[in-house]
Amino acid sequence: MSTALTDSVHLAELPWPEFARRIAEGAPVFLPLGSTEQHGRHMAMNVDVVLPTAVCERVALKVGGLVAPAIAYGNRSQPRTGGGPAFPGTLNLAAATLSAVIRDVLLDLFRHDVRRIVVVNGHYENIWPAVEGIELMLDAVGRERSDGLVVLRIDHWDMVRPETIARIFPDGYPGIELEHASVIETSMMLALRPDLVDLRAALHDGPARFRPYDRYPVPPSEVPPSGVLSLTEGSSAEKGEWLLADAVDGIERAVREEFGMQ
Amino acid sequence: MSTALTDSVHLAELPWPEFARRIAEGAPVFLPLGSTEQHGRHMAMNVDVVLPTAVCERVALKVGGLVAPAIAYGNRSQPRTGGGPAFPGTLNLAAATLSAVIRDVLLDLFRHDVRRIVVVNGHYENIWPAVEGIELMLDAVGRERSDGLVVLRIDHWDMVRPETIARIFPDGYPGIELEHASVIETSMMLALRPDLVDLRAALHDGPARFRPYDRYPVPPSEVPPSGVLSLTEGSSAEKGEWLLADAVDGIERAVREEFGMQ
Amino acid sequence: MSTALTDSVHLAELPWPEFARRIAEGAPVFLPLGSTEQHGRHMAMNVDVVLPTAVCERVALKVGGLVAPAIAYGNRSQPRTGGGPAFPGTLNLAAATLSAVIRDVLLDLFRHDVRRIVVVNGHYENIWPAVEGIELMLDAVGRERSDGLVVLRIDHWDMVRPETIARIFPDGYPGIELEHASVIETSMMLALRPDLVDLRAALHDGPARFRPYDRYPVPPSEVPPSGVLSLTEGSSAEKGEWLLADAVDGIERAVREEFGMQ
Amino acid sequence: MSTALTDSVHLAELPWPEFARRIAEGAPVFLPLGSTEQHGRHMAMNVDVVLPTAVCERVALKVGGLVAPAIAYGNRSQPRTGGGPAFPGTLNLAAATLSAVIRDVLLDLFRHDVRRIVVVNGHYENIWPAVEGIELMLDAVGRERSDGLVVLRIDHWDMVRPETIARIFPDGYPGIELEHASVIETSMMLALRPDLVDLRAALHDGPARFRPYDRYPVPPSEVPPSGVLSLTEGSSAEKGEWLLADAVDGIERAVREEFGMQ
Amino acid sequence: MSTALTDSVHLAELPWPEFARRIAEGAPVFLPLGSTEQHGRHMAMNVDVVLPTAVCERVALKVGGLVAPAIAYGNRSQPRTGGGPAFPGTLNLAAATLSAVIRDVLLDLFRHDVRRIVVVNGHYENIWPAVEGIELMLDAVGRERSDGLVVLRIDHWDMVRPETIARIFPDGYPGIELEHASVIETSMMLALRPDLVDLRAALHDGPARFRPYDRYPVPPSEVPPSGVLSLTEGSSAEKGEWLLADAVDGIERAVREEFGMQ
Amino acid sequence: MSTALTDSVHLAELPWPEFARRIAEGAPVFLPLGSTEQHGRHMAMNVDVVLPTAVCERVALKVGGLVAPAIAYGNRSQPRTGGGPAFPGTLNLAAATLSAVIRDVLLDLFRHDVRRIVVVNGHYENIWPAVEGIELMLDAVGRERSDGLVVLRIDHWDMVRPETIARIFPDGYPGIELEHASVIETSMMLALRPDLVDLRAALHDGPARFRPYDRYPVPPSEVPPSGVLSLTEGSSAEKGEWLLADAVDGIERAVREEFGMQ
Repeated sequence: MSTALTDSVHLAELPWPEFARRIAEGAPVFLPLGSTEQHGRHMAMNVDVVLPTAVCERVALKVGGLVAPAIAYGNRSQPRTGGGPAFPGTLNLAAATLSAVIRDVLLDLFRHDVRRIVVVNGHYENIWPAVEGIELMLDAVGRERSDGLVVLRIDHWDMVRPETIARIFPDGYPGIELEHASVIETSMMLALRPDLVDLRAALHDGPARFRPYDRYPVPPSEVPPSGVLSLTEGSSAEKGEWLLADAVDGIERAVREEFGMQ
Repeated sequence: MSTALTDSVHLAELPWPEFARRIAEGAPVFLPLGSTEQHGRHMAMNVDVVLPTAVCERVALKVGGLVAPAIAYGNRSQPRTGGGPAFPGTLNLAAATLSAVIRDVLLDLFRHDVRRIVVVNGHYENIWPAVEGIELMLDAVGRERSDGLVVLRIDHWDMVRPETIARIFPDGYPGIELEHASVIETSMMLALRPDLVDLRAALHDGPARFRPYDRYPVPPSEVPPSGVLSLTEGSSAEKGEWLLADAVDGIERAVREEFGMQ
Repeated sequence: MSTALTDSVHLAELPWPEFARRIAEGAPVFLPLGSTEQHGRHMAMNVDVVLPTAVCERVALKVGGLVAPAIAYGNRSQPRTGGGPAFPGTLNLAAATLSAVIRDVLLDLFRHDVRRIVVVNGHYENIWPAVEGIELMLDAVGRERSDGLVVLRIDHWDMVRPETIARIFPDGYPGIELEHASVIETSMMLALRPDLVDLRAALHDGPARFRPYDRYPVPPSEVPPSGVLSLTEGSSAEKGEWLLADAVDGIERAVREEFGMQ
Repeated sequence: MSTALTDSVHLAELPWPEFARRIAEGAPVFLPLGSTEQHGRHMAMNVDVVLPTAVCERVALKVGGLVAPAIAYGNRSQPRTGGGPAFPGTLNLAAATLSAVIRDVLLDLFRHDVRRIVVVNGHYENIWPAVEGIELMLDAVGRERSDGLVVLRIDHWDMVRPETIARIFPDGYPGIELEHASVIETSMMLALRPDLVDLRAALHDGPARFRPYDRYPVPPSEVPPSGVLSLTEGSSAEKGEWLLADAVDGIERAVREEFGMQ
Repeated sequence: MSTALTDSVHLAELPWPEFARRIAEGAPVFLPLGSTEQHGRHMAMNVDVVLPTAVCERVALKVGGLVAPAIAYGNRSQPRTGGGPAFPGTLNLAAATLSAVIRDVLLDLFRHDVRRIVVVNGHYENIWPAVEGIELMLDAVGRERSDGLVVLRIDHWDMVRPETIARIFPDGYPGIELEHASVIETSMMLALRPDLVDLRAALHDGPARFRPYDRYPVPPSEVPPSGVLSLTEGSSAEKGEWLLADAVDGIERAVREEFGMQ
Repeated sequence: MSTALTDSVHLAELPWPEFARRIAEGAPVFLPLGSTEQHGRHMAMNVDVVLPTAVCERVALKVGGLVAPAIAYGNRSQPRTGGGPAFPGTLNLAAATLSAVIRDVLLDLFRHDVRRIVVVNGHYENIWPAVEGIELMLDAVGRERSDGLVVLRIDHWDMVRPETIARIFPDGYPGIELEHASVIETSMMLALRPDLVDLRAALHDGPARFRPYDRYPVPPSEVPPSGVLSLTEGSSAEKGEWLLADAVDGIERAVREEFGMQ
């Protein structure tokens, strides 16, 4: 019992004295940013939470870090990158709301003497509200009073090596924006949570062919009915592990370098 | 595999078409409100997430409902009710931030035709920001355009029957505010997640004797060093099940009555 | 004439040099928080302003303090604690608005070198927006730059001694939440402003029997039609003076102790 | 006793059923906007509350209206129009805060079926936040759904007739902006609250000679040390009554015409 | 080519190293505040941008300053001062939005070591949101950490000398508020951008006779149909140059005096 | 004179009746979004304003549209896409500020019966605040009451055809994010405003080699000292015209198709 109480990599599974001890030793804190968003007929809606949380757990175990509770609601899904708000079940925050959440959580980490923070994002539309949340936090602290704080903001898909992309997409990579609910995310989910994937339910109605602009308020009809922007064919748990390995390795390397942890 | 994909009681573990199907059938949606907050030396900091989430799961299974992802960061901990912000690891949102999160999530549930919402709270300081979030959501929808929407806001401890309180506290109940990290929460955690409790680490430094007012900015020294406001003695998984049963039964009854589900 | 101009206990009745002189001598400033809210058919709607203002005046006279203008509009009335917004005449502020008012007033007091502030609240629903307003003020000042500032936040009913409650409610106390417009408030108003009470108009339609949760947007029909949550029978000016004496004594004691004023 | 309870012109001194009755009969509601601000060495700091409140009371008595509680904290005092924030005791709200208060109060009046609202302002710097508050309220209601609502926004000094100005200032009128704490306000206070004026304490250090622009953050040294922008000589209660009569007559006329009350 | 790149008085027409060089030498930065607002049938809607921008250019050339990009959208037009929002083409910002823009731009100027800022306003309704924007900027910087910063806020019409007014209005000046789209603005536009004036299109339907108060939401019918509040007769480019000369001279003098530039 | 007054493609250069006439005829309104941001040693800081404004002018002339005043201050520059805030002269708005500006301008266009709006963006970091501003505008209008409104949001560089990219970058395209102040922007500026480009001042210190994540608060040293993220070699006015032609053609086509204008 006491083992669990001091062994977890999850910040919220520790009692407060153990949290204090780890931070005093320099543990970086990882904050996963996710969303609750349609990911096709063949996957659950928590993909953007599962993936960055798993990546954070693995890196945190390697570097002696802690994982803060994932933010499970993300910024407004857009048709060209996530299918958009018309899909039932997609639950979104306004940009200002998400930025405020990130600002507040980071401010309290700072207040508790955390000076090494890694925000790991799993939802494309979160990128800019996360940037803003970090900027607002620094405005509140006062940049000249930030006492050695370093915040890294990482989109896990950006850590995947070109070699891996080339292996997975021998016929060419459609680009991360079209990868919503497609091979990359499906493969990673197959590696991590196969119980939340049912490839038989995948429709082959993609890939989406978007016009190169946004249209409001009526979402364009270009999103494939399934919600899958590209294709899921060729997804596999093995490929998912390649992708996870890249993300974990890349973030571990960044963390060690930026925080001076050998 | 496909079983899991349509069987879960967790909204975010479903693919979007299954979410749509359940809502069309009238499934109520339960939103657990928690916090990441010190709960003594003997418990993890996610108590306020674990408890309402478990209660929501149990009720949702009984009434055919869905559980939305828990909000894992709560409103500012106060010394008299949660130990306060001085304890390492307590990560808080400003009131306006939490209200905005609740407003946004409820607005999107409404947009997806959910008309039966139950907000189940596990953190005392969340009460008023949750009220405000619901009010802001109704302001945004327009109260006269709310189309049959009913939102219930429930603090799980308020559903415990006086008989149960009398059984657990034969010598008198200290009141819910002093119950932070004490017998009620410890017992419920023992029932649900014994791996996150270590009774040997509990200090017997309480109960807190608070002055009947708040003092800022220096938190009063009245909070026992452990962070436990009352005492943990007598906590047991059995009592935890009594408390859970009351919360589940009470909320189930409220849901059936208010939503007209026989 | 000049007597009045320097003798008043009300901050706003002084010319500015006298304000400056008193603050330089260490005068604490009391800020009453009220509301404009239905208080039954038998009382005016300014009860929550009259009571804390009177308490502040009495304490300020004893300790050489000043009373700032009362905030006459409070946070949203809720059915279970104030009858709710459906009663005509109840005029409410959103939580963020009230918090901003309190933040701004406290910031300006601080700017004018006030370091001893006592916020005395008379409206249940104000508690959490007042906490937030104080926290926001401290965020703006910078907690590490707050220069000895101490803010006390007191709900006047919490200063009433158990002995007094026992004397007033020999058959058991219904709890402060149900006391809206009932014996405690009616008695205090009889002591302070009998012209604003007409006991003949009191309906005997209570006490309210609330379900143990909130329901939105339709307010529950559980509020007695009169708006009185408990009963007014047995109210008297004499009891009102007992209650006032407790509040005044309790706050005076807190002020002397916390601010080191013998 | 019952007389007072239904006879008051002050909204908050009525029980809720009487408020409802008056509104149903078409009573306009007057909202006085004030400030807590230095007004020279010879006057209290509540001048901007006393004057519009008295004007509202008088008009409301004539037209069967109600006076809502005055807003006692105003928008940031500026050197050229109120002496500025450097004077001890001046307690200000940020513009957004004041606008939010006005928005919220007007929204609740509207919710209670009030369709005739008169905002009577006594503090120069409140003009634009009051305009904004009204605009925000209309934005929230929806201008096309405002159901006959009319809001008048009146600065009481703008109702003074040129003849009266000529009588009071036979040597020429310095303009309302320089009238802060000077003859107009001093005379009106002498008529209404002579106990809050001590002409012997008036310094003759004015009038202010302002540069025709604002300078921040250091307030210009052009404000006379007393805080009186013009001169107080010649102030009298008689002149105060002339001014009050003009304000009352002018507002009464506007109310009758705009609301179609003969 | 390189001449233009380092010679412009417009901040945004410089490459960044030249901006840095000028600021290091003490160049004041001028920020013109305008609006997009009806200005009668005879003038374009950018009058409030053209005028302060031209004034800023002329002063900046004389004192070695830089002109930041004008803010082309202003605060809500009001009937009594700008014709109001009912005129097609008037595009407004809420007060809080405009204040936030000014706050942010000034904060970034401060961050880049600018300590001499002159905000030159061309739209009456911008006055108070500009004041608030400056105050919010100072709140964010911290008034005690503002490091010698001086911000001047100037309405260009306030720099016109009484002698000039007397020359232009031999029969009496209607006051700046009625001057919207009238002789002053028309003359200045004739001097600066005669291509944006067509005097033949001017209607002679003024002057406006406003009631001395505001009315919402229905704008009063007192605004002349043309949108011209006073009259345009007698406007000329020559008079425009007189007015420009006064504004430029007055601001130059203020800048040299306040910033200690001989 | 009168020619100019009714012929301009710029909304703000028209008198209000001409604006009304054009909108009644179905003229789409184009809103250019820019920034004031470093663009290398060889270009002015208004590149992001000049480019989308020119594109808007050209398209508006072809389709009978109007160009609203450009928003000259953009969202916070980030190191990986614009060099970041450390470069002198980069003047940024917080995301919420920019979103509010866009929301307000679009709301007023809608109020004036504009139902065809095209937001043309020239600054990478504006993308998401622009999306949010449009969403907030639709929230305020009410999506179900938007009366046929269509808003297109276009990044001008996304309209460039692959063929053109291939012609300009025969050795491969570095991607739009690295194109800040590089060949694309430099060529377009050479075509439009050669007076604001000095190729002799271009440093050849790029291209930037960014780590694939963001780091705060200290901006990474990876930005080339010049601020040019890629290279400027090979820039020419001719290439600029190719790029402009693509943007203009692409937007024209989108406008005609989406708004049903043949």
